[in-house]
Amino acid sequence: MNIAIPLFEGFTALDAVGPYEVLSRLPGATVSFVATEPGPKRADTGRLALLADHALGELPRPDVVVVPGGPDLSAPMNDEPLLAWLRAADQATTWTASVCTGALLLGAARLLTGRRATTHWLAIEQLAGFGAVPVAERVVVDGKLITAAGVSAGIDMALTLSARIAGDQVAQAIQLGIQYDPQPPFDAGSPEKAPPAAVEWLRTGRRSVLMSQTEMSG
Amino acid sequence: MNIAIPLFEGFTALDAVGPYEVLSRLPGATVSFVATEPGPKRADTGRLALLADHALGELPRPDVVVVPGGPDLSAPMNDEPLLAWLRAADQATTWTASVCTGALLLGAARLLTGRRATTHWLAIEQLAGFGAVPVAERVVVDGKLITAAGVSAGIDMALTLSARIAGDQVAQAIQLGIQYDPQPPFDAGSPEKAPPAAVEWLRTGRRSVLMSQTEMSG
Repeated sequence: MNIAIPLFEGFTALDAVGPYEVLSRLPGATVSFVATEPGPKRADTGRLALLADHALGELPRPDVVVVPGGPDLSAPMNDEPLLAWLRAADQATTWTASVCTGALLLGAARLLTGRRATTHWLAIEQLAGFGAVPVAERVVVDGKLITAAGVSAGIDMALTLSARIAGDQVAQAIQLGIQYDPQPPFDAGSPEKAPPAAVEWLRTGRRSVLMSQTEMSG
Repeated sequence: MNIAIPLFEGFTALDAVGPYEVLSRLPGATVSFVATEPGPKRADTGRLALLADHALGELPRPDVVVVPGGPDLSAPMNDEPLLAWLRAADQATTWTASVCTGALLLGAARLLTGRRATTHWLAIEQLAGFGAVPVAERVVVDGKLITAAGVSAGIDMALTLSARIAGDQVAQAIQLGIQYDPQPPFDAGSPEKAPPAAVEWLRTGRRSVLMSQTEMSG
């Protein structure tokens, strides 16, 4: 089973590496990182680069595609070879997957029309612009399309996908292998649960809201 | 604040990228990937390489060090410049951290003597060999030493560390930014919770135990 993860400048690293870490442990699976131009691709922070080992054309018919997202998709959204590869690959995949705003790239490739899908909570309203039905859940399965919410949700998506591909026992063993027994120190991982100041900071980019709301509540 | 993540051939990608994704969002923090020899470092699967942008000597005094692990540490365990850098860096860090079997590298650098620490559940008995006190918890803090259990535990560790460095509000906003509201499809992330066959598979490397135990229970 060939699993392709396309990279591009400005991708979010955990969007790609979370599913990679899970899916690379599937017996018989081979994960490949691909790009329009092979070579190092810088993540959104600029502080990390992953190597795309292969050109898109080297993997024209992967069994599974997993598309990561990023905060600024202007480059991949205008990368016609990438969008054409996604469209063509999807015709033959058994699963087409996205993490975070990777769903918007699937949308730009015209693969979301009429489909139930999710993405990062900050971007979920954008899905409708691609004809998709936005669903604010962590992992959304619609036929062979499986989409995950923001960043870390790719791990849950990949475990769900592993179970569909190889059965519950294999997925459970992979979960144990990566010791995925999550115990976050806070319960702030969704806009419904997080403190309003955190939601506001992320919506506006103004960290000062933390201080001002603390003062207001103090 | 300078945060250094050392890489080496055969590291586990999520061990490094989970904490990177959290800590790179700390206001004022700069995360750098370093190695004895800069350049691409292949992860344990061979299917992914991350670039180490800097030589160890370029970051002699990071404020925070986060050491990833891997299933076969024979290369880094014998990398004397890496161990010497860890030892010297630890003298000036505000936090010294590890994920998964990265703790064993801290042990090899003689930084665990008498310290409470954790690591991947499969390796936890090895900690005592370095004079550490093994603790089977997800995140263990002992003074400025913070160690995480296997692979995915680095995310929980990094959120805990973020709160210590920048306060709960910032850590909660980072958690929301990566939408870390974990919903694994199974509750199999620790050896106490996983099906015995999964534990056996990982302990022995023989996947056939899944089938035989299924038959036994059927």
